[in-house]
Amino acid sequence: MEEIATTIPSVTEAVVGLDVSINNVWLLVATFLVMFMQPGFAMVEAGFTRAKNTGNILMKNFMDYAIGSVSYWLIGYSIMYGTGNALFGDFSMAFFNPGEDSYGAGYSDFSDIMFQTVFAATSATIVSGAMAERTKFNAYLVFSLVITVLIYPVSGHWTWGGGWLSKMGFIDFAGSTIVHSVGGWIGLAGAMILGPRLGKYVDGKAKAIPGHNLTIGALGVFILWFGWFGFNPGSELSATGGSTSNIAKVALTTNLAAAGGAIAAMLTAWARYKRPTLSLSLNGALAGLVAITAGCAAVSPLGALAIGVIAGIVLVFSVEFIDQTLKIDDPVGAISVHGVCGALGTLLVGVFATDGGVLYGGGFKQLGVQTVGVVSIGLWAFATGFILFKVLKATNGLRVSKRIEEEGLDVYEHGEGVYN
Amino acid sequence: MEEIATTIPSVTEAVVGLDVSINNVWLLVATFLVMFMQPGFAMVEAGFTRAKNTGNILMKNFMDYAIGSVSYWLIGYSIMYGTGNALFGDFSMAFFNPGEDSYGAGYSDFSDIMFQTVFAATSATIVSGAMAERTKFNAYLVFSLVITVLIYPVSGHWTWGGGWLSKMGFIDFAGSTIVHSVGGWIGLAGAMILGPRLGKYVDGKAKAIPGHNLTIGALGVFILWFGWFGFNPGSELSATGGSTSNIAKVALTTNLAAAGGAIAAMLTAWARYKRPTLSLSLNGALAGLVAITAGCAAVSPLGALAIGVIAGIVLVFSVEFIDQTLKIDDPVGAISVHGVCGALGTLLVGVFATDGGVLYGGGFKQLGVQTVGVVSIGLWAFATGFILFKVLKATNGLRVSKRIEEEGLDVYEHGEGVYN
Amino acid sequence: MEEIATTIPSVTEAVVGLDVSINNVWLLVATFLVMFMQPGFAMVEAGFTRAKNTGNILMKNFMDYAIGSVSYWLIGYSIMYGTGNALFGDFSMAFFNPGEDSYGAGYSDFSDIMFQTVFAATSATIVSGAMAERTKFNAYLVFSLVITVLIYPVSGHWTWGGGWLSKMGFIDFAGSTIVHSVGGWIGLAGAMILGPRLGKYVDGKAKAIPGHNLTIGALGVFILWFGWFGFNPGSELSATGGSTSNIAKVALTTNLAAAGGAIAAMLTAWARYKRPTLSLSLNGALAGLVAITAGCAAVSPLGALAIGVIAGIVLVFSVEFIDQTLKIDDPVGAISVHGVCGALGTLLVGVFATDGGVLYGGGFKQLGVQTVGVVSIGLWAFATGFILFKVLKATNGLRVSKRIEEEGLDVYEHGEGVYN
Repeated sequence: MEEIATTIPSVTEAVVGLDVSINNVWLLVATFLVMFMQPGFAMVEAGFTRAKNTGNILMKNFMDYAIGSVSYWLIGYSIMYGTGNALFGDFSMAFFNPGEDSYGAGYSDFSDIMFQTVFAATSATIVSGAMAERTKFNAYLVFSLVITVLIYPVSGHWTWGGGWLSKMGFIDFAGSTIVHSVGGWIGLAGAMILGPRLGKYVDGKAKAIPGHNLTIGALGVFILWFGWFGFNPGSELSATGGSTSNIAKVALTTNLAAAGGAIAAMLTAWARYKRPTLSLSLNGALAGLVAITAGCAAVSPLGALAIGVIAGIVLVFSVEFIDQTLKIDDPVGAISVHGVCGALGTLLVGVFATDGGVLYGGGFKQLGVQTVGVVSIGLWAFATGFILFKVLKATNGLRVSKRIEEEGLDVYEHGEGVYN
Repeated sequence: MEEIATTIPSVTEAVVGLDVSINNVWLLVATFLVMFMQPGFAMVEAGFTRAKNTGNILMKNFMDYAIGSVSYWLIGYSIMYGTGNALFGDFSMAFFNPGEDSYGAGYSDFSDIMFQTVFAATSATIVSGAMAERTKFNAYLVFSLVITVLIYPVSGHWTWGGGWLSKMGFIDFAGSTIVHSVGGWIGLAGAMILGPRLGKYVDGKAKAIPGHNLTIGALGVFILWFGWFGFNPGSELSATGGSTSNIAKVALTTNLAAAGGAIAAMLTAWARYKRPTLSLSLNGALAGLVAITAGCAAVSPLGALAIGVIAGIVLVFSVEFIDQTLKIDDPVGAISVHGVCGALGTLLVGVFATDGGVLYGGGFKQLGVQTVGVVSIGLWAFATGFILFKVLKATNGLRVSKRIEEEGLDVYEHGEGVYN
Repeated sequence: MEEIATTIPSVTEAVVGLDVSINNVWLLVATFLVMFMQPGFAMVEAGFTRAKNTGNILMKNFMDYAIGSVSYWLIGYSIMYGTGNALFGDFSMAFFNPGEDSYGAGYSDFSDIMFQTVFAATSATIVSGAMAERTKFNAYLVFSLVITVLIYPVSGHWTWGGGWLSKMGFIDFAGSTIVHSVGGWIGLAGAMILGPRLGKYVDGKAKAIPGHNLTIGALGVFILWFGWFGFNPGSELSATGGSTSNIAKVALTTNLAAAGGAIAAMLTAWARYKRPTLSLSLNGALAGLVAITAGCAAVSPLGALAIGVIAGIVLVFSVEFIDQTLKIDDPVGAISVHGVCGALGTLLVGVFATDGGVLYGGGFKQLGVQTVGVVSIGLWAFATGFILFKVLKATNGLRVSKRIEEEGLDVYEHGEGVYN
């Protein structure tokens, strides 16, 4: 008996250890997939803009990941996840370096900061698209740093960090609002302050400035779709117990929403512009992906398809509205994809979330909470972005000179062209 | 003692739960890798065709994944895996949405439909290559839908769905025939009915129409090779127990066959055409991958290498034969790679499968069963594809007008060029 | 009691089995990621060279993976990991095909050979960059074979194979020296013997020959960064027990070093050449990745950042020194990235390794051991490479004719251009 009595605790301990190991592997794999979204964004933004500015957009996408990786580790993570108060974390985890056997949440704390880092970098990289082809490179580096070190972590603290929105019951599973619309609204502020690219609006009419290589743009969207299987299913933060089923369900809802978004955007474009255009179909998939990110764990597969379809339709009208009515020049459609569809998807959680298999019965209450989250985070991101860009404009300057914009940012800002 | 007695069952239960979780994570990772083969196919097909049709081929590859994701979830999965009879499943799993804790096969049922969806989409996307540069886009959408909703699920039911071929002992581990040759033979039917591209055969002689960007073509093949590590090892559907060793062995056999195919095709091209061409070497790797897919779990590493080498050699002669003797215009070689080498690899299981370390001793019996499977599924795919394309040709039209083909499908069918 | 007594051993056995399964899945996923570095290298090398030689560089990158996959399985693995003596393994594992349930190291032996194969292929593929745009294709195939079958396995046996350097306490966790600098020094020997490309040095002055497509170059670097999450964390060879935390920590140190390398190289280039150039920033990230590979498990996050920053700075000066002072023509900077920064990072382990949270206190002893490893492996790689290239030059010829180099290797060596 003695032998059995000593064996059982150690077996139990081993089982708990394996549970942690599985979750840890899952979280790391998800981290790698989300990190891989960075070239996805880079290829989309490079493909949808002009060849003379390709080096600049690549450099921005590349360096914001590098800067965000350092700055979020250095201080951003602590501001977001430090205990602090309802509005702001603290500095207790600056220069994050927990002990070797630190498993705060059922997986290594090192995995946690890596997973959170790639999310912060996603939020930052969205901005470059909306402000492409005319922003000074040194200004970009500064605001990219401020986003990962301050803007994103603060609203992140309100929600995932346990702050006031989290306490209200705000649902944003993987960050339609927390990650994507934050990037989208900062980009909106930037695009407004920058003004349109030269030649974009002639006699008050919007002129299309086609991207130089939709092949790599399409590759980028495929990469993003692939990476989203880390973004959404990974946000379950576990792969065992009840999460075993949940991560798989989230993969399905994510995929259906992306597909629905692509199909709906294609058909909407076909009906409205007489052609099933590649660029809008690609952005439709991204719209579906962004929109399902909030509710991927809360809705049924059919609900996910509905959210994707709605996002795909809204995307087409939003792009047109921002481009032609508001006359805000967003070269890659980032404001519509990430800002508008991020907000939309977060609100739709209040419509399509299910409880025990039936559509959510909480009446307008959840919808109200969702609205509070969307609006408050939206205002925070837009306002801080607006102030930041105004300050940069007044000090360093935000936009390149007319001559540089005409001849291309690559040669003047970076000293080399991309295609030779 | 009481304490121990209650602990043991719960520990046992926990261990079973972890086993399920590991398999589930493995299956999801494999799913994501197979999904990532979609941009692999897109880049290969775009790279091997002309710039004026790039948007069209990208759009086809992109939308068939979107459509397949929805339609296979909606009904295809149920037709393939519903109990039904020996020939056809049923509709019991339409709008698939199992309960949260549904683990029919040792992993989440949600993982199962995701894994099966990406396989269905693979079969569908192969067709676009064989019919590239001349097929109407709206017709493509229709037949892509029919493939994922009917053609692929029905023969899939005969095999993986437990139907008549499965009962005969047909071996096609990950789908050389079930997935790849189905796509290849439908493509053959399509290419025959469409006829060759304008300018392909001049005075009865085949003229090479080189692809516009083999760099992205090569990237696509690398991506496919990478994704195949989900396709084949993932098809073990487990990562624990005896599967622990099997999934690793399948990774090795898959890699050796791909390598063997590339080397053999390069050498064959070098001997026959005096040059080690990139395009045939790339297709040689794909030939090896397609061929090993049926037998990857049943053959030894050396056997896998042999299958890859044979496929790489056959590939070169098959491409030449189809192009110059049969005068069927297959712009990317999809019929040879997926149809011919899929059938070949399935037959070679009957030659190279090992039993207890020695070459398969079942005489001609297994080879006979393999032949029945290859022929019956081949006829099904070719015949249904043939009828489908004939109906589309008679109603909607299958081929674009001469003018659109000459000036490029991108501008006319989609309203935008890819390169600007 | 009888029942409990029989249950406990079987539960313990199941737990051990699951532990093996988790490690095995982890190792396979890492293998796939490292394999995916191959297109990363291919895109970097293709993007940084000229369009007329793109097919050739793609073909080299593609075929060295194919050849390495076969040859390392055939014999290289056995030379590296066979017991043998302190200098050389043996041939006991040629045509590697262990039994189905062979778990020598806590995971399937099949996983082990796959993981080791992709490392061998990484070492081999580095060489093609340093010798780009002027090397005969058939010579390349021969030396690629010799590298994976002999040069890499022998020095690999000294270290990971348990040979003399391993016994001295040499630390090179994932292969800064064992993999990367081996490739780099062989490339150095090759570039020296080949001589510079035509037009590279005019009147004794180095002339920049810009790459034809930095977009795919940037994509390649992103892919390499992604794949490195298999390379370094995977080299822990386990994901359970203490490794649970270690693999996550290695992911963090790897990411911080890459980021630090990119930022430091950008700033150094900005200060020195007045422009933050894309090409040097990209290579800076690679320099950080190569440098951290030796010490990723031994240093703190802050130490990793420091190693990355140092590597990023050194990279810029090394590229300039090799290009302009030594006048050795390395089209993609492979000697600086993999040779110099591989050696540098291995030495820095002796500076930044921590023990119980404080900087390594072993004085100069570890630094001495690291130096012995760096120098002995460096000499081995350079000398064998030098002899190999001299022999090839004297027999088959190593460099293409002037006419082929001027008109492009694609058409003459491979019979087809890449862009049409």
